Amino acid sequence: DEIREFARGVVESEIEKHAADGIGRVDYALANGGAAVVRHSEAYNVGRGNWYMLTSRNGVHPKANLMLNPSFGEPGQCFPLKGSSGFVQIRLRSEIIPEAITLEHVAKSVAYDRSSAPKDCRISGWLQGKNTDSLIDTENRFLLAEFRYDLEKSNAQTFNVLTSAGSGVIDTIRFDFTSNHGSPSHTCIYRLRVHGYQSDSVSMMAIEP
Amino acid sequence: DEIREFARGVVESEIEKHAADGIGRVDYALANGGAAVVRHSEAYNVGRGNWYMLTSRNGVHPKANLMLNPSFGEPGQCFPLKGSSGFVQIRLRSEIIPEAITLEHVAKSVAYDRSSAPKDCRISGWLQGKNTDSLIDTENRFLLAEFRYDLEKSNAQTFNVLTSAGSGVIDTIRFDFTSNHGSPSHTCIYRLRVHGYQSDSVSMMAIEP
Amino acid sequence: DEIREFARGVVESEIEKHAADGIGRVDYALANGGAAVVRHSEAYNVGRGNWYMLTSRNGVHPKANLMLNPSFGEPGQCFPLKGSSGFVQIRLRSEIIPEAITLEHVAKSVAYDRSSAPKDCRISGWLQGKNTDSLIDTENRFLLAEFRYDLEKSNAQTFNVLTSAGSGVIDTIRFDFTSNHGSPSHTCIYRLRVHGYQSDSVSMMAIEP
Ligand SMILES: [K+]
Ligand SMILES: [K+]
Ligand SMILES: [K+]
Repeated sequence: DEIREFARGVVESEIEKHAADGIGRVDYALANGGAAVVRHSEAYNVGRGNWYMLTSRNGVHPKANLMLNPSFGEPGQCFPLKGSSGFVQIRLRSEIIPEAITLEHVAKSVAYDRSSAPKDCRISGWLQGKNTDSLIDTENRFLLAEFRYDLEKSNAQTFNVLTSAGSGVIDTIRFDFTSNHGSPSHTCIYRLRVHGYQSDSVSMMAIEP
Repeated sequence: DEIREFARGVVESEIEKHAADGIGRVDYALANGGAAVVRHSEAYNVGRGNWYMLTSRNGVHPKANLMLNPSFGEPGQCFPLKGSSGFVQIRLRSEIIPEAITLEHVAKSVAYDRSSAPKDCRISGWLQGKNTDSLIDTENRFLLAEFRYDLEKSNAQTFNVLTSAGSGVIDTIRFDFTSNHGSPSHTCIYRLRVHGYQSDSVSMMAIEP
Repeated sequence: DEIREFARGVVESEIEKHAADGIGRVDYALANGGAAVVRHSEAYNVGRGNWYMLTSRNGVHPKANLMLNPSFGEPGQCFPLKGSSGFVQIRLRSEIIPEAITLEHVAKSVAYDRSSAPKDCRISGWLQGKNTDSLIDTENRFLLAEFRYDLEKSNAQTFNVLTSAGSGVIDTIRFDFTSNHGSPSHTCIYRLRVHGYQSDSVSMMAIEP
């Protein structure tokens, strides 16, 4: 009976986590929460000649925010970039002290091909503030994480922020990938999440939901 | 081995329930099933200046039906109303004898802030029929449930309909909240469901899906 | 402890499968993956007078692809066809050697009514290639599967392809249903998936994602 209770408990907590956007962790890069892709390397045109795929706002591809929103786990719900290296820059929902990054690709069991998954990755972050100029002093950027996305592990992989990053406040991150898992033509990003917390002073200034 | 079978059984039935719109219970307030928000107190303008957010049909905000459809459990998929008290009126998919109400907010683990969750709630119901006038004799309204949404419990909370409501047939409900969990500016409704059954005569008249 | 580990293992693998588009199996009929409904018997107009429901491309109803994409498991996310018999023809994402077919209806626990579920079904497949003429020699069609959708079993039911089909390459399938579970007016198809694999030569020609 004790075991039965235990089994039930494990099931309930795992399903609760799954039901809470997959991993049960706050995501400050969620597009529905106010985050947005603000810059990226050249998009890969998977297009089937659809003209609307070519329109964009400020050079940001209309499909870019697919990488900042959840999906059912089926193939195709990603943002494809040209080549095997590139970058994406994301304005977060609010200023936070970052703690971890989650990179997700389509699950092995339903994928047609996973050679487009990013491999060697590097995340940096900084406080852009109201500075609308996209350039910012490199000395103010933090290296948040460097990791390799591993095709043999679970498809959503979480990496803690380096202690060297201290506890600096950021509102923007840049995701650079320098290689992928074999595709010469493109690299697909299914979802990138940024976890952390708002410091007291920060959250006091941001009453809006 | 017996235990293993048991564990597998628990897992399968819990996942089946989860896969069936989260709780595995028929919902007569589902927008995709034909239900609709028909009236509400003033909407809260979360807007980022998007003009389309301001358009509406018959005074009903275009975002209102977000509270009658499923989502991935991420923050933002809700209908925000101004202030800490207010109401929403919902035309159900069909005439039913109501049995229970489920109120759902975003899960604690992924929420930015849960002060906008409704707290003290009251649900009433009646048969509006073809009477398009939104007023109806108060004596014909049933009090279906009175409850407090508890932030410490599971994020989808189900409340049985009061026995005092008898087994009257209804096609419309009104959800009133008189307080929330702290936000002075707005209250968010993630999802409201109405469970029950169609009486034999009722279902005979409604052959449509 | 051994049992606890076992319970945790079962839970994790079942949730992983669920998170991977429900059943954790590659689907070559996924609309988001490039597949499309190309022909069908007359659609059933559930419509509420919405003119946009009536527009179509090449005689294919705009709602048709609902049956080739995932949903939350709630009622309504289906393609309704007129009457109790009919057919749908689907161009797959790529050429494959088919292994199994999955037919899914809304789960019993959340359904308003399941009399619109298909009952006696038959799937055939062939290689259409660049032949845009919708007719093809009947002798080149394979019977892939014949089955009855059973309302008492799990709502997603998988049927292996008949061994008589050999291992012929196909890029198109046709789903015929000759009866449903009781509705005289219409039959709803929630989702149809086609499982299989690309032969080496086939996948070499198809580098695109
Ligand atoms: K996505
Ligand atoms: K919702
Ligand atoms: K569907």
